Amino acid sequence: MTVNREREEHVAGGGLLHRRAFLGMSAVAAGGLASGLGAATDPRSPVSMREPGGALSGYGTRAPSAEIIQRIVPELPFPGTGSSRTPLQLLEGTITPNGLHFERHHNGVPAIDPATHELLIHGLVRQPLLFRYDDLLRYPRENRILFIECSGNSGTIAAAAPVQASAGQLNGLVSCAEWTGVRLGTLLDEVGVDLDARWVQAEGADAAGMTRSIPLSICLDDAMIALFQNGEPLRPEQGFPMRLLLPGIEGNASVKWLRRLKVIATPAFSREETSKYSDLLADGRAELFSLRMGVKSIILFPSFGLDLPGPGRREISGLAWSGHGRIRKVEVSADGGTTWAEAALGESVLPKALTRFRIPWRWDGGPATLLSRAVDDTGAVQPRRKEWVAKYGIGQGYHSNAIQSWRIDESGHVSHVYA
Amino acid sequence: MTVNREREEHVAGGGLLHRRAFLGMSAVAAGGLASGLGAATDPRSPVSMREPGGALSGYGTRAPSAEIIQRIVPELPFPGTGSSRTPLQLLEGTITPNGLHFERHHNGVPAIDPATHELLIHGLVRQPLLFRYDDLLRYPRENRILFIECSGNSGTIAAAAPVQASAGQLNGLVSCAEWTGVRLGTLLDEVGVDLDARWVQAEGADAAGMTRSIPLSICLDDAMIALFQNGEPLRPEQGFPMRLLLPGIEGNASVKWLRRLKVIATPAFSREETSKYSDLLADGRAELFSLRMGVKSIILFPSFGLDLPGPGRREISGLAWSGHGRIRKVEVSADGGTTWAEAALGESVLPKALTRFRIPWRWDGGPATLLSRAVDDTGAVQPRRKEWVAKYGIGQGYHSNAIQSWRIDESGHVSHVYA
Repeated sequence: MTVNREREEHVAGGGLLHRRAFLGMSAVAAGGLASGLGAATDPRSPVSMREPGGALSGYGTRAPSAEIIQRIVPELPFPGTGSSRTPLQLLEGTITPNGLHFERHHNGVPAIDPATHELLIHGLVRQPLLFRYDDLLRYPRENRILFIECSGNSGTIAAAAPVQASAGQLNGLVSCAEWTGVRLGTLLDEVGVDLDARWVQAEGADAAGMTRSIPLSICLDDAMIALFQNGEPLRPEQGFPMRLLLPGIEGNASVKWLRRLKVIATPAFSREETSKYSDLLADGRAELFSLRMGVKSIILFPSFGLDLPGPGRREISGLAWSGHGRIRKVEVSADGGTTWAEAALGESVLPKALTRFRIPWRWDGGPATLLSRAVDDTGAVQPRRKEWVAKYGIGQGYHSNAIQSWRIDESGHVSHVYA
Repeated sequence: MTVNREREEHVAGGGLLHRRAFLGMSAVAAGGLASGLGAATDPRSPVSMREPGGALSGYGTRAPSAEIIQRIVPELPFPGTGSSRTPLQLLEGTITPNGLHFERHHNGVPAIDPATHELLIHGLVRQPLLFRYDDLLRYPRENRILFIECSGNSGTIAAAAPVQASAGQLNGLVSCAEWTGVRLGTLLDEVGVDLDARWVQAEGADAAGMTRSIPLSICLDDAMIALFQNGEPLRPEQGFPMRLLLPGIEGNASVKWLRRLKVIATPAFSREETSKYSDLLADGRAELFSLRMGVKSIILFPSFGLDLPGPGRREISGLAWSGHGRIRKVEVSADGGTTWAEAALGESVLPKALTRFRIPWRWDGGPATLLSRAVDDTGAVQPRRKEWVAKYGIGQGYHSNAIQSWRIDESGHVSHVYA
């Protein structure tokens, strides 16, 4: 195919193109092929048209060639303690299939019988109450598409040299699903919160006894007891039969396998909010309860492991999100941050959910450095790495929302760089 | 718990309540229980807190107790020819997990190797082109949350007596996913459509050689060649490696395992658009190419198979959608259609996608008949059953969007009725 260069309108340096410039790309001219088209009984037809296909099934599985798409599971001394990551660079859209939602467990995935599991809400309340799974199913529900991001996601951005690994390996502690459950505020209304209550201590029924303190204001705002994930009951790795779900807040605080909410006056300073999940600053102090995730974006194509076979037009694509609300815009640079152009956002830009961005690009075969920069509807702008590392102490890896950069060399190889 | 009747504000007959009226419902008072709370090492704690949990995994599976949620697969003479239905009444939210998306196959599920599969676009075009899977991956993509509904969904509404079956059994030939792919208009630009072209004939690579004619205007509007479903590659049952996806159009026309698009001047009148998928009218004529799905809603809770254990407050909940655009409102009646109240809609009301609706309800223990009526943003109103059957001939079961009614008797048993 000839390339219709005359139709290309450049919107920034390094080959970034206007959305409508994308034509004449890749296909095989097929002048004489129509005569070779066979019907179902024609031996020239593909075998799939000549033999009846497989049966209907109760619960579908993936095509064999798609089964290579797996969560990224590291070697671990204790196989239930650690994290697996969503292979973001191999997925599309914004919804994470339930089987590929990232995991972060502190002592494995408990097997919980929903018939015996109970959620206790007590502490500074008028009337402590015990909710069984079936009780919660009677309450009014809401469904929201929301991301969950581990506070430690993209933490290797603090490393002295850029780690060479896939976008999912670096950033795959974020996933997005449609969650359905009961507003926590509804249940707190039931128990009647005392006037001096300020925090809620959440405890999971796992063998880590995961415990976090959450400001009451967040619990009364948009917190949810989630029971369903993309339509079906929660997966065990995501907290079956019930989890706390705090939209926009670091994932660890959305306590899985939730068994207890204690309404309290001051934070509990539990193990996980002192030994972990506090952010060392450059001046030696630490930020505690830095719960909300910042505005962020990552480019997924091109990215490490997805080298370009040759020059030509492609679509740069990635994901953006913010714990504060909706993504307002994503800008992309193909020349290392010198010039920027605004990417198109997906059809539905929902608050505290992943948003897909895309921009057409002509790679001319020379070196190129790609960056993306998200802005949310509070006006917050994703920081450059040097701004981010200036704020935090050495080795601090929580709440990394710094801009990540990919460099394409003349061979089409993509590497992670600090630009 | 005492029932706070004084807080209930009724919005229609039969016990329909204002949204904020929902409190004091169901839980166990837990005054002395806090003392029984143990830490991870405490033998009074649940066993899940005392033993390390399971390992991280590459691709997650469901909790054992959730595995009963399966597609509804009938006994079939040829196990690949027929349909399986999404168990809508057991799911929540709007997204259908990929393993539970409904199926409708005319000769089984083909096993297709994406490395050899090709899509030919030819006919009334300037330059026929052959697109391999990898070619399509280079094109700009879009992601949209869209329903697909089989034209024969809810077809038993035409039966002389109401069929007693679950909401999924009756209406489960509809599912909703986030689809990602390439705009068909982009590919039609590539081949260059002739001025006298008016239709596109789509052919699948299955052993039914599924072939449908689609107006060119629909193909140039928002049609997509879908490659991904809820983030991952299409499932084989939904057309892997590629399918046509026509938002809002009857599902059969969104040809799966797509291998050929022939641009033509007049419809092909293929087998599936004459022997099937044409709608017999009451006056003996038939509607052909009645492609767009009408505005529709169904109540999923309460519904057949989900009997009420006793009087009290519950949430009536269901799904609404329209092939014409967005849902504007859903009204619910709890007194057989005498009075109606407007339900709350889910957070994101997207065009041609499923929308969740909910309204609180107090069941007083007496007989009640529940109906839901959707209105879309074109102003189209879901018809009553008698209006719908007056239009069509006997036995016609396509494009049923009539209001469906559930009757609750004094025992809490739910049955399907014609109201």
